[in-house]
Amino acid sequence: MIVGKTDKLILLTNDDGLYATGLKVLLSVMEDFGKVVLISTNESMSGMSQALTVKTPLRVKLLEENEKHRIYASNGTPTDSIKLAINQLLERVPDYVVSGINHGSNASVSVLYSGTMAAAIEGCLYGISSVGFSLNNFSPSADFSACNKYIRIVMQKLASELLPAGVCLNVNIPDTSENEIKGIKICRQAKGNWKEEFEKRKDPMGKTYYWLTGYFNNHEPEAIDTDEWAIANNYVSVVPVTVDMTAHWYIDNLKDRFNK
Amino acid sequence: MIVGKTDKLILLTNDDGLYATGLKVLLSVMEDFGKVVLISTNESMSGMSQALTVKTPLRVKLLEENEKHRIYASNGTPTDSIKLAINQLLERVPDYVVSGINHGSNASVSVLYSGTMAAAIEGCLYGISSVGFSLNNFSPSADFSACNKYIRIVMQKLASELLPAGVCLNVNIPDTSENEIKGIKICRQAKGNWKEEFEKRKDPMGKTYYWLTGYFNNHEPEAIDTDEWAIANNYVSVVPVTVDMTAHWYIDNLKDRFNK
Repeated sequence: MIVGKTDKLILLTNDDGLYATGLKVLLSVMEDFGKVVLISTNESMSGMSQALTVKTPLRVKLLEENEKHRIYASNGTPTDSIKLAINQLLERVPDYVVSGINHGSNASVSVLYSGTMAAAIEGCLYGISSVGFSLNNFSPSADFSACNKYIRIVMQKLASELLPAGVCLNVNIPDTSENEIKGIKICRQAKGNWKEEFEKRKDPMGKTYYWLTGYFNNHEPEAIDTDEWAIANNYVSVVPVTVDMTAHWYIDNLKDRFNK
Repeated sequence: MIVGKTDKLILLTNDDGLYATGLKVLLSVMEDFGKVVLISTNESMSGMSQALTVKTPLRVKLLEENEKHRIYASNGTPTDSIKLAINQLLERVPDYVVSGINHGSNASVSVLYSGTMAAAIEGCLYGISSVGFSLNNFSPSADFSACNKYIRIVMQKLASELLPAGVCLNVNIPDTSENEIKGIKICRQAKGNWKEEFEKRKDPMGKTYYWLTGYFNNHEPEAIDTDEWAIANNYVSVVPVTVDMTAHWYIDNLKDRFNK
């Protein structure tokens, strides 16, 4: 892969691993937008959030290179992979960091746990236009055919104007056919949480262990400006995500409390 | 440990593991505020962000129980530990989730990578008053003696009035003596990023590996309302942190762009 002066350079990753269908779909779409460097892991890294690998060494292997793309396998988290690629593997700072297509929604508070969105957030910490794509279907054999059209629209909008510093996009696509999707809604993150239901089991040695399971609890199912509403109503949701976690609106109240 | 009807119940964790000095200091202070259930790991979980353990079973072991506290060892991330404690180990929903004292600052964008702050964020997703404490010194043998006074002040302020839904506190304490600390500043998260400098090495088999290293790059060193400024100027910084990562201020602009 030779990156010419006018080529766009796209850094691509995901958190479902190198063999995920969603990644293959996204690679194929991205090749229409520029030269692609893909870095991901052999195993899935779902739910890894913005985790960093600090206790074990990172390794990376070039798997494939052709005119359109270069593919690396890494043993790091999605965030590690983005850092490693930008610092050690790429010829220059990429034009885009793109992550996904995740098998499963990353709407509402799932943005906090998602390795897919962490990669996009990491990209935007480097000042790069970054976006994470997710399909609202967890199945490894999910049908991604409706995604193509909307990924292209989002990439064209990204190309037309830079995102502000510290902002990336969280794009969630409903699990339905392209002609059922009504369009794109710009949304806010829905208020909600995950309700856990740990499965308590005994291993063959008689010792207790737990599996984390759970379901999403939407705190505002009636609100029509949220990502959860959009997806449930067959819209593609686009949420601008900020790296600034300050509750700015609460600063004055907190000052009053601490000055009492 | 018997939790009476009027006792406050405090769920305590950290990301530096059960043997960290900062955790011992925080346990001792928290015992003056209520009954404490501590859950942490044998090994450190630094930089684990809001990661969830989904591919391996979680295990937990009761290590110690007395009048004042109960201590569990878990093999999960800080976020796993909070979820597991609330769902499987506690008699009732705790009054507080408290995390730390972290060995090292979690100011600015470190909030995104921090396991300590992830535990506090997880607590507030459950609607519990939650706070993460960090000392601006990464050393395992850091001196935590200045922390006591300020942790007590923050806990008293927390007790006086509930935090709003979806907001927790990120408290960072400068690495100096108590009489050098000028007081508490309510702040916003400083804009910045971590600049990576990967160390590239060869293992005994001749294969390349990388260690993640780096330094923090403050994008606005002159701003006096940030957590970074406060700590550098010997104030304790208190940032209200929201679980809502939406860039609300950018929604209208993004709508315009997508409507073009």
